Amino acid sequence: MSTKPYQTVNRQRYRLAEDGSFEMRLSQDLVISEEPLNIVLHWTCQETGELLEKTLMVTMRTPGDDASLVTGLLLSHAVIEHADQIQSIISSELNQCDITLATSVVLDWESLTRHFISHSGCGICGTSNVKKLAHTFNVTIDETPQWLPVSALLTFSTQLRQQQSLFSLTGGVHSAGIFSLQACLSAKEDVGRHNAVDKVVGDLLTQGKLDNQSILMLSGRISFELMQKAVAAKIPVVVAIGAPSSLAIAVAKQFNITLIGFVSEHTFNVYHGDFRLQKQH
Amino acid sequence: MSTKPYQTVNRQRYRLAEDGSFEMRLSQDLVISEEPLNIVLHWTCQETGELLEKTLMVTMRTPGDDASLVTGLLLSHAVIEHADQIQSIISSELNQCDITLATSVVLDWESLTRHFISHSGCGICGTSNVKKLAHTFNVTIDETPQWLPVSALLTFSTQLRQQQSLFSLTGGVHSAGIFSLQACLSAKEDVGRHNAVDKVVGDLLTQGKLDNQSILMLSGRISFELMQKAVAAKIPVVVAIGAPSSLAIAVAKQFNITLIGFVSEHTFNVYHGDFRLQKQH
Repeated sequence: MSTKPYQTVNRQRYRLAEDGSFEMRLSQDLVISEEPLNIVLHWTCQETGELLEKTLMVTMRTPGDDASLVTGLLLSHAVIEHADQIQSIISSELNQCDITLATSVVLDWESLTRHFISHSGCGICGTSNVKKLAHTFNVTIDETPQWLPVSALLTFSTQLRQQQSLFSLTGGVHSAGIFSLQACLSAKEDVGRHNAVDKVVGDLLTQGKLDNQSILMLSGRISFELMQKAVAAKIPVVVAIGAPSSLAIAVAKQFNITLIGFVSEHTFNVYHGDFRLQKQH
Repeated sequence: MSTKPYQTVNRQRYRLAEDGSFEMRLSQDLVISEEPLNIVLHWTCQETGELLEKTLMVTMRTPGDDASLVTGLLLSHAVIEHADQIQSIISSELNQCDITLATSVVLDWESLTRHFISHSGCGICGTSNVKKLAHTFNVTIDETPQWLPVSALLTFSTQLRQQQSLFSLTGGVHSAGIFSLQACLSAKEDVGRHNAVDKVVGDLLTQGKLDNQSILMLSGRISFELMQKAVAAKIPVVVAIGAPSSLAIAVAKQFNITLIGFVSEHTFNVYHGDFRLQKQH
């Protein structure tokens, strides 16, 4: 398999003509790559000092930024909290990523995989309800008020779109970006929206650029799972082009995250946390 | 928690006025419900005759059609092939679904959960590549040629939209439908696109209405995971509003499924399997 983020395929394009007949044209099309990534975790047994190794999961993703993806994934599953808890990440061209945790990291494999098993339904990684989430992530998210100008919010959808090069090529991809008030700090695309979020979070965690006033911007809808990733990364503001789910709103309330949906260049909806908005301009 | 498919929430709607100021209006909004479903499997140990019971997974879904969801999920994970392999399904209002397999069903729990563990990345349920899929599902999919009129294909997107009542209300939901040439046999909506597919497949499996010339219609994009569900249900034609991924096309080629993307009222793209199309009209 190729490890390019997109591939060229043949397609037949049918079009209804004005006279009611059909035209068919053979051409080439670019499609987004979806390939399995075998994520192998290496960690040190605290009792024996032995280096252990197991496949954590196989996930489907768009090739590219595998190290960021895995870093973000480990953060969102509460395996790590800081980038320096990772000793090394080696991505091979054979769709495998080997990640070695620092020797000091205590890993409870049984508990971690139980966590994965019980939530293996697609669309969810993590705890099955908001209370469990609060237990897993005993985090405090910055609550500084009135730092986010309404006018800035209206620029994010355009800024994210400018980063969506794979979407322009293939139409088959989600994107996620993390913004400060000054700039887009990181933007990534993936066939899975959860992967796009893991990639931007992992990228900034590695760079040490995740801070108290980061804004997570999503190209699609907002589910529980995506809010969970925001919680793990202590991101205080989540903004999306699409609609939130009921449970996404519940997570926003539990962690006092500002949750904004249906953002465009002229409007947006605030579902929780308007205290961070700066309404004068 | 409520078990309604949507919920009413408060929102603040901000709008940029012509003079550059902002209007804010407080109103109510409907959002799609996303709630955990605890799926508990009950089966008979073939050696001892004992009735065993374990949680298979907790998945996030939109409440409603839980029995169909679980039936489709068991089919797509190769636990069952026919509806009569299920003895009973009991859905409670507490977001739990208890499913009892017929006593004759041989279940290898270790193998099943290994299957789940290794693919617990969101966006994938099932085998990690196309070859494994061919091994798991040793199915033959009907290859009758030229039964699907091009003109019929152009009606499916409108037909599916007419069924999307939750989308109209909330904007936060995917839908899936299974059509015959004559009618829409079943259409379901869910916060997760994989769930919507499990629900329609499960519904028709239970009713005994899945046949050789079923057409699966999707409101979004087409990933490996969704093609896997089509394979398990022996559905020969998959049509989507959105783009296919590279691996979705690979599955279509492996199982000789007709794969159509970007369908509208006037155009569509065929990525594989045009032999089923009837081009005269």
